[in-house]
Amino acid sequence: MNPRTDAVLATLEADQEAAQARLMGWLRIPSVSAQPAHAGDCRAAGEWVLAQLTALGFTGSLRDTAGHPVVVAHHPGPDGGKGPHLLFYGHYDVQPPDPLELWTSPPFEPTIVQGPNGPQVRARGAVDDKGQVMMWIEALRAWHAVTGTIPVRCTVLIEGEEEIGSPSLDPFLEANAAELKADVAVISDTGMWDVNTPALSTRLRGLVYTQIDLTCASRDLHSGMYGGLALNPLNLLTRVLGQLHDENGVIQIPEFYDDVVDPSPAQKAEWAGLGFNPAQFLGEIGLTQGIGEANRAPLERLWSRPTADLNGLWGGYTGDGSKTVIASQAHAKLSFRLVPGQDPAKVVAGLHAFLAARLPEDAKVEVQVFGASPAIEVPADSPWITEARGALAEEYGRPAVLIGCGGSIPVVESMRRLLGLDALLMGFGLTDDQVHSPNEKFDLTCFRHGARSHARLLGRLAG
Amino acid sequence: MNPRTDAVLATLEADQEAAQARLMGWLRIPSVSAQPAHAGDCRAAGEWVLAQLTALGFTGSLRDTAGHPVVVAHHPGPDGGKGPHLLFYGHYDVQPPDPLELWTSPPFEPTIVQGPNGPQVRARGAVDDKGQVMMWIEALRAWHAVTGTIPVRCTVLIEGEEEIGSPSLDPFLEANAAELKADVAVISDTGMWDVNTPALSTRLRGLVYTQIDLTCASRDLHSGMYGGLALNPLNLLTRVLGQLHDENGVIQIPEFYDDVVDPSPAQKAEWAGLGFNPAQFLGEIGLTQGIGEANRAPLERLWSRPTADLNGLWGGYTGDGSKTVIASQAHAKLSFRLVPGQDPAKVVAGLHAFLAARLPEDAKVEVQVFGASPAIEVPADSPWITEARGALAEEYGRPAVLIGCGGSIPVVESMRRLLGLDALLMGFGLTDDQVHSPNEKFDLTCFRHGARSHARLLGRLAG
Repeated sequence: MNPRTDAVLATLEADQEAAQARLMGWLRIPSVSAQPAHAGDCRAAGEWVLAQLTALGFTGSLRDTAGHPVVVAHHPGPDGGKGPHLLFYGHYDVQPPDPLELWTSPPFEPTIVQGPNGPQVRARGAVDDKGQVMMWIEALRAWHAVTGTIPVRCTVLIEGEEEIGSPSLDPFLEANAAELKADVAVISDTGMWDVNTPALSTRLRGLVYTQIDLTCASRDLHSGMYGGLALNPLNLLTRVLGQLHDENGVIQIPEFYDDVVDPSPAQKAEWAGLGFNPAQFLGEIGLTQGIGEANRAPLERLWSRPTADLNGLWGGYTGDGSKTVIASQAHAKLSFRLVPGQDPAKVVAGLHAFLAARLPEDAKVEVQVFGASPAIEVPADSPWITEARGALAEEYGRPAVLIGCGGSIPVVESMRRLLGLDALLMGFGLTDDQVHSPNEKFDLTCFRHGARSHARLLGRLAG
Repeated sequence: MNPRTDAVLATLEADQEAAQARLMGWLRIPSVSAQPAHAGDCRAAGEWVLAQLTALGFTGSLRDTAGHPVVVAHHPGPDGGKGPHLLFYGHYDVQPPDPLELWTSPPFEPTIVQGPNGPQVRARGAVDDKGQVMMWIEALRAWHAVTGTIPVRCTVLIEGEEEIGSPSLDPFLEANAAELKADVAVISDTGMWDVNTPALSTRLRGLVYTQIDLTCASRDLHSGMYGGLALNPLNLLTRVLGQLHDENGVIQIPEFYDDVVDPSPAQKAEWAGLGFNPAQFLGEIGLTQGIGEANRAPLERLWSRPTADLNGLWGGYTGDGSKTVIASQAHAKLSFRLVPGQDPAKVVAGLHAFLAARLPEDAKVEVQVFGASPAIEVPADSPWITEARGALAEEYGRPAVLIGCGGSIPVVESMRRLLGLDALLMGFGLTDDQVHSPNEKFDLTCFRHGARSHARLLGRLAG
């Protein structure tokens, strides 16, 4: 162990309440990237975190993009430090908080409440990703407090468009590839296995996110005058999208599974050994039965099988009571989680073919693509994984597990493609964190152990 | 023919310009029942028409309801008159004029413009229903001018909530059933076959309007963390509602067609002879192909076959861009147009069975019913139809056709149920009247012939 690490950990312990207060300050900024009215708040959230970094000796700025700005900051590390050069990545933007009426406290008034694992902070962005970013910033702050510098050379990249598919990130990485060069990307935007078992994520599903806009008649129609003869786009949309899966849960998009790479038998065996309890996993969200491919283990369905989920559906009259209208248009948001091997462009092409084969001539369809990124698989035997496993084992007193993640972190793929970097995905979320839902929260015990784990990792990497 | 009818028709001809001016005066009152700001205008429109009736010797008043007032007026007819007792029904309220920017003249500044059939008056309510009400009032006025009285005993009922679903009408009919007793209801709120071909509507479809609320997980979920294992209510809703029709357009609700009464071969033959042009009907709304049961003529699909149309659909994220959510709930508004024989309660029960057979245990469903009224079929051989056909044939020099109407006029069903009255549906609208749309209009030739037809009918009924 690095001889200074104990002092750093003691500093973190002493500074805990102030660290929580800092996190809550950031959470008060409603940096909802999807909503233009919050553009100013997004910039403010970026400025807020930049100030945290400059206080630790980082040199940086807000860098404008076509969308929300990117925070970039550099620290050379200790004079003559021989450690690696880390690129810390995070995002300051958050999901829209809707539906507001389901929050038990306002989403941008962070509130400490008691949970089964002790106190937790409830707010939009508590864990995704402000709380996870603040863990490594607090670790860097403690190192800075003890040593007057940070233990290794670091670049920080914190974007503001992760929740809307990072449209400006790839151009930014391309334009600034030289400046952003490093040895590895460190990202905390994933989860633990459970509150006592740390985890590193080595598989992430990709994402293709689309919007389907269907137009039939040239105007809204009276359902009495036209019903029975005029094509109804809502009926048609349900008819077509109702065929996305067959009765065995198999997705019907042409060529969808052709290139899927199955995990190794060893990987599947490790997952099987985790003791995943689908009844409990589903019971926590009020369900009793898993859906999907019956011949695949539940954890495989979450980590190594692709999906087709409708995320939104709308059209016609949606107010109170009744309106006897046949709408002119119907809309759906449909996204696909991809697994290693699948090509996002091929999935989009398959969707077009699926729709074309099922729509009559009178239906005009447009497909918008809001994001398309392939799945990621990180090598399980890299030195970064080895050091991170060591840091986590020291902190938790038990080995970290290598897990998959059903979600996507497209930046991981972008960093590999545009910067040539592998990613170390060390996250501290829990499955009940209500990510993207009302009452998102982050357990303060995870926040504390996460900051301590990052402090340990920095110490190990400094050598 | 009644010996006085010729003089009455001559009076109508001489009074035409004044009649148009009176109609325009009523149209200037913006009696929009849906908008509370126009409550005073609704009352003013009721008072205006009441004054027209009292000038003809009617005794009546505005009768308050929970909503807008109802105009009720009585006239005993000629001393010792032996004719029937008619209940004239109409409505003084109009649809909201929005979107205002699509009107070529202000909706409440009635304007005479030239159309393909000569001059027409353009204003909100021109045909629906102020213009159609003023036809029979002008007919009564001419009879009064010539004879000093009106030819038969009449009760007039003009409500102010037709455009918002007549919420106060049923309670009013129930509370005043004795006062409103008559031999037949006469309603002008329907259309002609075309500008030269008069029509009587003898079939109206009924309506069952429902809302389906589907709940799966207890909260919204992250589509990455849960997708592939957690039941998605939007996927499920499209899957289930996508099965409403089979590939031949046949509705799959159990027992849905069991009690359907097909029109008589004679009726079908009459419809076939109308020369309905589906390509033109659909072309006007930007469509080329009719949907529905391939083995049924297009006009049958509109008038004598039931439908299942989604009127609204919503759930999940419907804003700009993307949100990777699996919603907890999905919703649909689903309505059925019913035809004679179908029992609304049985259709609702069939919908429950249809859903129950297709929903897994983890899906909780609620079905709200916002309205359930059976179809109406008026006996084609009643004396009212016979006399009305005679009056129309005299006026137009060609026989009137008996047509269906795809829509519902709930008051017809209410009058049958609560007052025991059949309805005579003699209307003079045209398909291009833009009912409920911007630039609503009424052809003055229809207004003139409509008034003359009503005058003839009154003469025939007086014997």
